[in-house]
Amino acid sequence: MGTAAILIIGDEILTAKFQDENGPWALARLRVLGVAVDRLVILPDTVEAIAEEVARAAARCDVVFTSGGVGPTHDDRTFEGVAAAFGLALEERAELVAAMEGFRMPLTPLTLRMARVPAGAALLREADARYPVVRVRNVYILPGVPALFRQKFEAVAPSFAAPAVAVGRLRADDDEAEVAGAMARAAAQWPGVAIGSYPRYGEPDGRLLVTFEGTDVEAVRAAMDEVAATLRLRSVVRP
Amino acid sequence: MGTAAILIIGDEILTAKFQDENGPWALARLRVLGVAVDRLVILPDTVEAIAEEVARAAARCDVVFTSGGVGPTHDDRTFEGVAAAFGLALEERAELVAAMEGFRMPLTPLTLRMARVPAGAALLREADARYPVVRVRNVYILPGVPALFRQKFEAVAPSFAAPAVAVGRLRADDDEAEVAGAMARAAAQWPGVAIGSYPRYGEPDGRLLVTFEGTDVEAVRAAMDEVAATLRLRSVVRP
Repeated sequence: MGTAAILIIGDEILTAKFQDENGPWALARLRVLGVAVDRLVILPDTVEAIAEEVARAAARCDVVFTSGGVGPTHDDRTFEGVAAAFGLALEERAELVAAMEGFRMPLTPLTLRMARVPAGAALLREADARYPVVRVRNVYILPGVPALFRQKFEAVAPSFAAPAVAVGRLRADDDEAEVAGAMARAAAQWPGVAIGSYPRYGEPDGRLLVTFEGTDVEAVRAAMDEVAATLRLRSVVRP
Repeated sequence: MGTAAILIIGDEILTAKFQDENGPWALARLRVLGVAVDRLVILPDTVEAIAEEVARAAARCDVVFTSGGVGPTHDDRTFEGVAAAFGLALEERAELVAAMEGFRMPLTPLTLRMARVPAGAALLREADARYPVVRVRNVYILPGVPALFRQKFEAVAPSFAAPAVAVGRLRADDDEAEVAGAMARAAAQWPGVAIGSYPRYGEPDGRLLVTFEGTDVEAVRAAMDEVAATLRLRSVVRP
């Protein structure tokens, strides 16, 4: 299974002007694609912060997605930050200038920063797209506007799809503490199965949710059976 | 203005079983309190990841809030991770064991990990609370269950309150690119005012939002006036 990091760039999220929509959406999509997410970081739109987080994430993960900071204003600094992360210069790309003209964007020194990307960046143009996705090494630089983020993500992310993950869920009337031992035993016996328990309050279907996930469906079922035997079960969803 | 980091610990968020509620809530509260948030990181519940992120955040920020990983199950590893971040041992605290007994929790080797916290941790007990907040240096270790996270946050966070931030908002019918120059000039002239612009689609009140924030209300108003003069305004909210 590949690993990914998601970097949400923007003071507007950290200062609570907007709630981040792209992070939760990308987490759900990457889960379905079988890509394990190692970190999601929301960071300010300074070159220093972007460079630091991109360098860390790119070294540790197979793929990195950034969201935001690619518009035409003074606080759009993602290209500069990614260039700094890898010690690259910025270079204006004629293909991007032409795309901006296609959108009838005014071409000024400030807006043309949208066409100045890290040297050697790949410009990925899916069918019918009027604007390419910019990739630098294993970093995919996506726009922050949610509709555009999703469109560009779907243009590139399915190529990372891994074996499907089998998911099982138990609901029960037990406390976490009562079943901690059974879960620890199952986790040790089936190390490929990720087991999580979550107290739930004020929900009709029992006060504990236990989840089981892994690419080996038989192992997921066996771990579920081991834990289920110790629970006052309310519901079972087997993979 | 103080700086803070928020660390959301839990595979259940990264694997999209739940959407994080505590991060957005804490961002909004810290904004109101005048505390600048430097990073929000969602990370897996491994000791290694927790130790790495806690060490980084504690060194860079005035205060760090962690969410999650303090329950009685095998995947609750926040105390271990914080201890590893600072090279501290874990020690069982009689006060925490007594609090667990007050909740009628079974005391087993697994559940007693809830009472084993980094050596020298401060146990902060607000009025009437049955369970203290655990603090290690500048790291406040909060539970992940949203109702409890909020309760414990409110018990400690108001002490970090800083001067109030004045906020102004403009809505307009312009494109970002058209006003990028005016915003850059205002940002240079009033460096203490944070100016952000955000394209909005499908909303009735114009397709651009521009925000102005700072602790000097006169500077915020002056920067607003500078930019507003260049906009086809739809609405103005002055601080």
